[in-house]
Amino acid sequence: MTSSQGRKPEEMRLGVFLDAAGHYASAWRHPSTPTDRFFRLEYYRQLARTAERAKLDVVFFSDRYGLPDRYGDSFRATVTALHCTKLDPFTLIAALSGVTERIGLAATVSTSFTEPFHVARQFASLDLLSGGRSAWNIVTSTSDGEARNFGGERLPDHDARYERAREFVEVAGGLWDSWENDAFVFDKQAGVYAEADKVHYLHHRGKHFHVRGPLDVPGSPQGRPVLIQAGASEAGRDFAAGTAEVIFSAQPTLDGARSFYADMKAGAASYGRSPDAIKVMPGMMPIVAATEAEARETEAMLAEFADPVAGLAILSDQINYDLSVHPLDGPVPELSEVSGMQSRLQLVAKLTRSDSPTLRQLGRFYGGSRLHRKVVGTPVQVADFMEEWFRQEACDGFNIMPPYLPDGLDKFTELVVPELQNRGLFRTEYDGSTLREHLGLPWPAGRNRT
Amino acid sequence: MTSSQGRKPEEMRLGVFLDAAGHYASAWRHPSTPTDRFFRLEYYRQLARTAERAKLDVVFFSDRYGLPDRYGDSFRATVTALHCTKLDPFTLIAALSGVTERIGLAATVSTSFTEPFHVARQFASLDLLSGGRSAWNIVTSTSDGEARNFGGERLPDHDARYERAREFVEVAGGLWDSWENDAFVFDKQAGVYAEADKVHYLHHRGKHFHVRGPLDVPGSPQGRPVLIQAGASEAGRDFAAGTAEVIFSAQPTLDGARSFYADMKAGAASYGRSPDAIKVMPGMMPIVAATEAEARETEAMLAEFADPVAGLAILSDQINYDLSVHPLDGPVPELSEVSGMQSRLQLVAKLTRSDSPTLRQLGRFYGGSRLHRKVVGTPVQVADFMEEWFRQEACDGFNIMPPYLPDGLDKFTELVVPELQNRGLFRTEYDGSTLREHLGLPWPAGRNRT
Repeated sequence: MTSSQGRKPEEMRLGVFLDAAGHYASAWRHPSTPTDRFFRLEYYRQLARTAERAKLDVVFFSDRYGLPDRYGDSFRATVTALHCTKLDPFTLIAALSGVTERIGLAATVSTSFTEPFHVARQFASLDLLSGGRSAWNIVTSTSDGEARNFGGERLPDHDARYERAREFVEVAGGLWDSWENDAFVFDKQAGVYAEADKVHYLHHRGKHFHVRGPLDVPGSPQGRPVLIQAGASEAGRDFAAGTAEVIFSAQPTLDGARSFYADMKAGAASYGRSPDAIKVMPGMMPIVAATEAEARETEAMLAEFADPVAGLAILSDQINYDLSVHPLDGPVPELSEVSGMQSRLQLVAKLTRSDSPTLRQLGRFYGGSRLHRKVVGTPVQVADFMEEWFRQEACDGFNIMPPYLPDGLDKFTELVVPELQNRGLFRTEYDGSTLREHLGLPWPAGRNRT
Repeated sequence: MTSSQGRKPEEMRLGVFLDAAGHYASAWRHPSTPTDRFFRLEYYRQLARTAERAKLDVVFFSDRYGLPDRYGDSFRATVTALHCTKLDPFTLIAALSGVTERIGLAATVSTSFTEPFHVARQFASLDLLSGGRSAWNIVTSTSDGEARNFGGERLPDHDARYERAREFVEVAGGLWDSWENDAFVFDKQAGVYAEADKVHYLHHRGKHFHVRGPLDVPGSPQGRPVLIQAGASEAGRDFAAGTAEVIFSAQPTLDGARSFYADMKAGAASYGRSPDAIKVMPGMMPIVAATEAEARETEAMLAEFADPVAGLAILSDQINYDLSVHPLDGPVPELSEVSGMQSRLQLVAKLTRSDSPTLRQLGRFYGGSRLHRKVVGTPVQVADFMEEWFRQEACDGFNIMPPYLPDGLDKFTELVVPELQNRGLFRTEYDGSTLREHLGLPWPAGRNRT
């Protein structure tokens, strides 16, 4: 059993958001990225073990279904300029479960084109196999291109996607409660494997799903997988407040982050949940080096790689709107009605209001750091930033987004983590074995939980 | 590149069919089965490494969706008497990819309630992460209970399931051909990740699926996952002849196995395939000990555990027909019209014709060895059996089904494998690194393959 008691209040949670090349859109072009290892488990094992040596809470992989091709109805810019290939993130964290010991393993799985029985069962299985270290980042898909790999032509609209997502998570939670904790008997003499009275049908009959259950997989050492959400729209925030245990978000400013943090904690409370039961971890891209000048040089090099068209290709896909119909050197068009990822849209709107960029300039941002919150400087400067946000109640920790890999992660763990540890802001050893314990989350409530 | 040339024709292929407890229905009751480790990766790692030390070709895990409850519309008998829990097998082999080096990793995934895009992508990802060691056992689901976890009430009929399966595999194969082998450029200076002209949409629009593609995952060191099939019905055999690279089957007699083998090789030829491109590996349950008497004792002990009602519960689910409506001590009813697994039905019909058992007796068989081909005896006796079937062209090797675990696998690898190796019938070292190489299968043909 786990609870948040005993955790020092001044310790932050740190996850690392991984992919093959890093979070600069053209990071693969950095001289140090190992393009010949992008499809090898050995590479991801190295990354995950680096994070584990630094005692990070969790490694996280995002997802989408297929190649981004919303821009000009073509994947040409994406395939040519970007590391567009993507291993299935669930398969990746399952493979990593055998080569890591303590660190949490999180993957995005969309609720838009999947079945709750399969998703619940795969995560429940991984949660057992990893000893209670799995987490599911619940998203809705955001582009028509994804719909076209699953029999559809168009993405369902935003509210419909969230309606399905809510019911999906309700079903998954119900399936995870199929087995009471003490259902197993394992009496070989009497021939009683388990008590049938402690195994339960779900009998879910909702608008989107009919699922009878029971799941044939019992609960894990952390009860059930940790639920992550990153919705920034109104529907997304409300869903997260009621459901999520970890919130990833993109927060460009301290004030915005503080307001989001307060909003999410209040939202959790409005659902009768403890504010401690929901951890807010905004994304943060550290570009760190021994000197600030060196860090700035790295940033300049990464920005140099940016391809504006490829940047617009990523953005078009995320907001589900083809930006290729507008002139590259004209202003950013009014985008309030697009149906894709509302959080990206909000960031673009914010940028457009303050800087009035052209589409090419927006593409350059997006083909570079993608509007993520960068912190560029020395280990002390990065730690100062993190400490300020943490102490100012702008977050419970961060989802670290290395600008390029593996070097960007190595630098963070070698330079920044020790600085945080010296300040008493981050653990020096794991004191639990499950992800729920690392994060200081309570044992999940549930129908069949004691 | 792989081909079957250079492989000694007298070497057989050996897979091992694993689960938690073993293949006797009540194997978990054997004093040596570690019920406290059934949900731990460490246990499956031990099993897979044992198989790998013995140089076996592949470990295999089967699947179904949910708890068998067709019998009396209840899971009571199943949950009480059987090791009814089941980890998602794909998740399990993904986890095993990190803790094994050479052995193939095969899992069942049904085509009945899944999407080809997801299945193709997960297997393609695992195939890369494992270095070309994955295999997909393609099945159609067999019970109404499974349908009820996916919005349905009744299982689609047998022919409809196979129709969907054919189209499903066609789509998956097309997605695996999304990337030409030489599509990647990785030119960091010029900023060219890959050649867009060498990446292809699928644009599949069939009866069951509309899938545009491309997949965002390229081919693996073995080209694509190995395809396994186990259909024994006419539709199943025809599907396997055209599609499968490995055939699992249940063959009780040498004559039946020889006829099936000839039939499958001829079937492959009728699809323009080399007979070597399809490996027939019937299931075989070795109960082996230093002396025949000791082996018989083990068999008697395992049979002792059999629960006739639980046996009928498994069978009811597999054939999708509730046997609880018939008296336990009456004859086995006429079952020719049931819609579930036709291969099981054939075995039951055969047994019923020859032995006229009561339903209780049938349940006892099924709650025991489940009608699988047992071979009970010394290592020499088991090897003699295997050699005879192999030399008589009844098979290309076997899918070994340990009666209980881990001991049944240890005994097979320690006692029988060396005997086969001494006879020159089985490898003493892996000479390839991919599953396709172990099995002596050709590089897969495909639109975008060189």
